[in-house]
Amino acid sequence: MFASKEVPVIAPSEKALIPFVSVENMMRLVHHIGIEKVLVELTDAVEEDFRRWEMFDKTPRIASHSREGVIELMPTSDGEIYGFKYVNGHPKNMADGLQTVTAFGLLATVSTGYPVLLTEMTLLTALRTAATSAMAARHLAPRNVRSMAMIGNGAQAEFQALAMKAVLGIQEVRLYDIDAKATAKTARNLANSGLTVTSCTSSQAAIEGAGIITTCTADKQYATILTDNMVGGGVHINAIGGDCPGKTELHRDILLRADTFVEYPPQTRIEGEIQQMDADYPVTELWRVIRGEAQGRRDDRQITLFDSVGFAVEDFSALRYVREKLKGTDFYQEIDIIADPDDPRDLFGMLQRAKD
Amino acid sequence: MFASKEVPVIAPSEKALIPFVSVENMMRLVHHIGIEKVLVELTDAVEEDFRRWEMFDKTPRIASHSREGVIELMPTSDGEIYGFKYVNGHPKNMADGLQTVTAFGLLATVSTGYPVLLTEMTLLTALRTAATSAMAARHLAPRNVRSMAMIGNGAQAEFQALAMKAVLGIQEVRLYDIDAKATAKTARNLANSGLTVTSCTSSQAAIEGAGIITTCTADKQYATILTDNMVGGGVHINAIGGDCPGKTELHRDILLRADTFVEYPPQTRIEGEIQQMDADYPVTELWRVIRGEAQGRRDDRQITLFDSVGFAVEDFSALRYVREKLKGTDFYQEIDIIADPDDPRDLFGMLQRAKD
Repeated sequence: MFASKEVPVIAPSEKALIPFVSVENMMRLVHHIGIEKVLVELTDAVEEDFRRWEMFDKTPRIASHSREGVIELMPTSDGEIYGFKYVNGHPKNMADGLQTVTAFGLLATVSTGYPVLLTEMTLLTALRTAATSAMAARHLAPRNVRSMAMIGNGAQAEFQALAMKAVLGIQEVRLYDIDAKATAKTARNLANSGLTVTSCTSSQAAIEGAGIITTCTADKQYATILTDNMVGGGVHINAIGGDCPGKTELHRDILLRADTFVEYPPQTRIEGEIQQMDADYPVTELWRVIRGEAQGRRDDRQITLFDSVGFAVEDFSALRYVREKLKGTDFYQEIDIIADPDDPRDLFGMLQRAKD
Repeated sequence: MFASKEVPVIAPSEKALIPFVSVENMMRLVHHIGIEKVLVELTDAVEEDFRRWEMFDKTPRIASHSREGVIELMPTSDGEIYGFKYVNGHPKNMADGLQTVTAFGLLATVSTGYPVLLTEMTLLTALRTAATSAMAARHLAPRNVRSMAMIGNGAQAEFQALAMKAVLGIQEVRLYDIDAKATAKTARNLANSGLTVTSCTSSQAAIEGAGIITTCTADKQYATILTDNMVGGGVHINAIGGDCPGKTELHRDILLRADTFVEYPPQTRIEGEIQQMDADYPVTELWRVIRGEAQGRRDDRQITLFDSVGFAVEDFSALRYVREKLKGTDFYQEIDIIADPDDPRDLFGMLQRAKD
């Protein structure tokens, strides 16, 4: 892992070492548990934290926008544990052979400020995004839904399909992407998943008979993946791709017919599909549905919309899940990222002694 | 370094690996260059960035406060490179044998969002804080100053003394701390530094004849390390310890006599010594002095005050300095923190293939 960079060791103190989960180890951890089981357990972990929503420090993410994309820091805390995620969103990266979204995250102890976990979060974000979608769908989708449409067949597509299968019992996924190669890639990856995979050549074809319509496209612009006349009643729309200012996927007429559920309104009004709507467009906070304080799906003909932009609490859930699952495994390395001299005031002495 | 956690390797792609500088490697890098040379070069690096102040994205740090302390994220960007630091401040840590301040930092490419450096920043913050103090003193201290007082002999003390020696030619440091053990520790560490070290039993004694008075104490409360009658004219006060809401070190009467220089007024008015003053208390931005757009020291009898709270640009300077200095060395490890599949849309395929 560390190429030829290994050097003789000056033993750091125990407290100075924190577990680091590389991409490689994250993949091992996921296979060790099983992907679908991870998705089910993550869905429960996210739901647990939505249930105690008020305990979390909530700050809209801190975004640094550039012409090419955005770099964001998403911090939160439940009073005992602090977590944050670094994540970028660069739609043009794909053309250069790079990931549109990469991420890593950290947990720390609030009472000391000492980090306790550093981990890759590109994979983990894909998993937690799918788990959050499944959690919302569990409360909002029509009963006994068996078919879903997946519009946008990029990096998130398979995770979404498997989460809906594992958590809701979805049996068929109907794929569509403007790039047929992306659809072929997704179909190939899901070939042995147990899902019936139907590749479609239009959004219209993909949503036929689907009780859940997931949109997850990456263009940083106002797009219209779904128009009003395409969408019948009795569906749940899971809109993931519209997640920053200037980036939406749904025609506003759909929003006028739908009941819209969101993570954290101050963030969603800026970043979500509802950025197209007036400031008083009614939304329901998803955590209130989960707590039984607000109604989810009301009837079979209703259109429900989860206008998902991703929120720090979901990353927190994923991070604490990984931390828990690491116990007793060796799917991590210990890295020496905290200077922890024996006498805390003697940082200089520690440096000085390292010379001898 | 990685205990017994080494596992067989699935080679990650080149782009997925980023250099990580552990505490141990930071110490090696510093000794390889030489501490005083690092302090001089860092002072220049910070000054370079203050000179192009307007190029930086400036956001007040994002703080998560708790009863015990604070965890902060400090991001900035010059349009090409993005950097942030994670840093905590927990005054009570010291009593538990932990560092009051620990930190790590990251640089990323703005155009792709891909990280390019991850490094410990506990040591690096100590170095950049001392370098920033030296940079300010270079523009504000009385001419030919040869003696400094160092009030508060904690983790920052030796770095401050060495930076003032290396950058300004200080010959004597006069130490005082309410805890004589801290003073003894600092005196011991500076014994072979070439500085004349004088240990004092009061602040009053420490500041006698000192042209620079540095205060760096850690109590999270309104303290009065210096009162008005203690401070004569013709000195430069370098106030570092007052760096968060509710934490100050100087009596306000001193501020009424001093000309005060700050990093970033919106942050300093909340966190610095000047939180004690009215919102229209006049301050000069240090970068304007460095650019020759504002006056620094006006005359020999003036009291100048650098009300330093630490700003993201200084961390950025330190991070880019380390990145530059790493070239051609092996003072880093490569860590696999970015999931970078061959086909960026095929994140799931990468995960799937890792199973085989």
